[in-house]
Amino acid sequence: MSTERDHRIPSPTISEVAAAAGVGRATVARTLGGYGSVSAKTRDRILAVAKELGYRPNSIARSMTTGETRTLGVVLADVGNPFFAGVLRGISDAARKADYDVLVLSTDEDLQLEAAAIEVLVDKQVDGIALAPAAGRSASLPHLDIVAKREIPLVLLDRLVDTVDADAVVINNRESSRQAVMSLIEKGHTRIAFVWGPVTNEPAAGADDLRRILDHALWSDGERLLGYLEALELAGIPFDTSLVTHVLKNESQATRAVLGMLSLSDPPTAIFATETDALTGSLRALRQRGLRCPEDVSLIGFDDSSWASVMTPPMSVVAQPMHQLGELTAECLLARVAGSEAPVATHVLEADLIERDSVAPPPTRP
Amino acid sequence: MSTERDHRIPSPTISEVAAAAGVGRATVARTLGGYGSVSAKTRDRILAVAKELGYRPNSIARSMTTGETRTLGVVLADVGNPFFAGVLRGISDAARKADYDVLVLSTDEDLQLEAAAIEVLVDKQVDGIALAPAAGRSASLPHLDIVAKREIPLVLLDRLVDTVDADAVVINNRESSRQAVMSLIEKGHTRIAFVWGPVTNEPAAGADDLRRILDHALWSDGERLLGYLEALELAGIPFDTSLVTHVLKNESQATRAVLGMLSLSDPPTAIFATETDALTGSLRALRQRGLRCPEDVSLIGFDDSSWASVMTPPMSVVAQPMHQLGELTAECLLARVAGSEAPVATHVLEADLIERDSVAPPPTRP
Repeated sequence: MSTERDHRIPSPTISEVAAAAGVGRATVARTLGGYGSVSAKTRDRILAVAKELGYRPNSIARSMTTGETRTLGVVLADVGNPFFAGVLRGISDAARKADYDVLVLSTDEDLQLEAAAIEVLVDKQVDGIALAPAAGRSASLPHLDIVAKREIPLVLLDRLVDTVDADAVVINNRESSRQAVMSLIEKGHTRIAFVWGPVTNEPAAGADDLRRILDHALWSDGERLLGYLEALELAGIPFDTSLVTHVLKNESQATRAVLGMLSLSDPPTAIFATETDALTGSLRALRQRGLRCPEDVSLIGFDDSSWASVMTPPMSVVAQPMHQLGELTAECLLARVAGSEAPVATHVLEADLIERDSVAPPPTRP
Repeated sequence: MSTERDHRIPSPTISEVAAAAGVGRATVARTLGGYGSVSAKTRDRILAVAKELGYRPNSIARSMTTGETRTLGVVLADVGNPFFAGVLRGISDAARKADYDVLVLSTDEDLQLEAAAIEVLVDKQVDGIALAPAAGRSASLPHLDIVAKREIPLVLLDRLVDTVDADAVVINNRESSRQAVMSLIEKGHTRIAFVWGPVTNEPAAGADDLRRILDHALWSDGERLLGYLEALELAGIPFDTSLVTHVLKNESQATRAVLGMLSLSDPPTAIFATETDALTGSLRALRQRGLRCPEDVSLIGFDDSSWASVMTPPMSVVAQPMHQLGELTAECLLARVAGSEAPVATHVLEADLIERDSVAPPPTRP
């Protein structure tokens, strides 16, 4: 208890030490900061006075001396999104354990905001940066040049970018997506909608065209779609471009897109929704059409939450290990900050398909 | 574009400027930092060289000179919780608009972690602190003494503490809770469960005893319960201590507590669940008993999410303005950082009761 109390006594300022020692503020700053030249006699007097007054260097003064801020910068799409909130919690927990703090910035998937965020973090001299890039997997990211030049450790999080040579922590999006779609196929579905596909003005003409479009999509989104395509191919089910959405990612767009699909002459009997808003948007479309899940349309979502399992019916989902993703990201980053020269690595965590009651065989055609 | 590119050229270090100007590093630091004495001739040479090399002071050097870090510290219960994630997003947006950044720490409602978080933020010399205190409303918070002594602006967020003299931004918990419970009473309910009440070893003997216990509870939790008590009183419904939970806040505890209530000889016909986990925990209890919502038991939750409205039935909830709560908190804090000497104020935002289909009249007794 008493040490805790002691810590709460404010440290005297440099000016207070200077006044007590009868020297100038700059001399105290040089002495306590350990830079510049001060006579041995003066330094001894200053150190004695500083000790007597209970001086503790603040973190800024320490940073001037050590070049360390003990702060990690985190750049995410949206800190208010439950997925990224869970990831951030994981990063924070691991950082705190190592006595590091976290500066967090949201990009809203906008590359200009991402560039501005990186500039802020470089200016704040964070010791390392964790970034969920807003760029497509084949993009070049000139705003990361300064990070490389300054040799600031960088870890990519949730998404890969081919042009960036850095450690990364992601989940096995393609495999978990393929597994989810396979589980629908095993129940007898052949008309399976995919929400969300990449945003394009013109829907892809076919699977190959779609693969080309994916080069410009977020890696994670692309992988989920590739998993879908692989599952169809494995089962010999022809790809139908009208069953993949090309709309902006928001819930009402998902609802509209799914309503459109349900109006097709050969509508989907199952939907694979690759984010929470895609799932709730799809559910809203089913409700508007008076369709039941799973009797009329089966559903699998992405990301688990306490809601998913209390739905009627409880929703099957691909559950990402959000906290672990954040934790491992921070651990990789801290290892680099500590000087690790291990080869650059991509760590792939596994997502789990949690099967509940939102999947049934397709309805028999009249 | 070209200015953007320019910004990416790394600023030379103080050592590089020193080498080019043929002077010592400390002299450059004094000149560029604007402290200590340097001859006019030397200063001019250093400034000319610094300009030629494109020197831009980094934020740490600026902080040494100005005493500002342009950073706000945010201390929340859990950054991974959807409510606090939404609040943090609001804080971040307002901070970014003002060119401030955000250091965020979670307390898990633990006062020792809160004290440690405050110490970290003081040490990092943040310009202001937003705090969702983990303490009961009547607690004294000695770890905030140093914040007051250093005159670091502080804004309480989501919860009030009587002993802390600071601006606060909260929602009208008591009124919105009373309104929710009144809406249940108007449908004919008199047996209304309250999840979550305060954690106690011994259930309250009566309403007065409960009010005493509330002095040690989080302000927001206490207000929600007081709103419940007020609604009962207004309607002349006797308070029954067995309809208020006293368990730790986690979903499985909520489920257990509700299962216990449903086994009473006079079980609740409605549940008011004051957080998301309380609601999903209650739904799980109903499902385990094979009870339908709203035919057997009506439900009102707290906090809206895209899930709530796609449930079967869609859930009635008290929706808190999370983003606005965060935004206003940051705005108040930034006004204090800018030197506002306005009287200390508590800002109360309104939560809305969103009525959906999870409330019906109580079932008629056999």
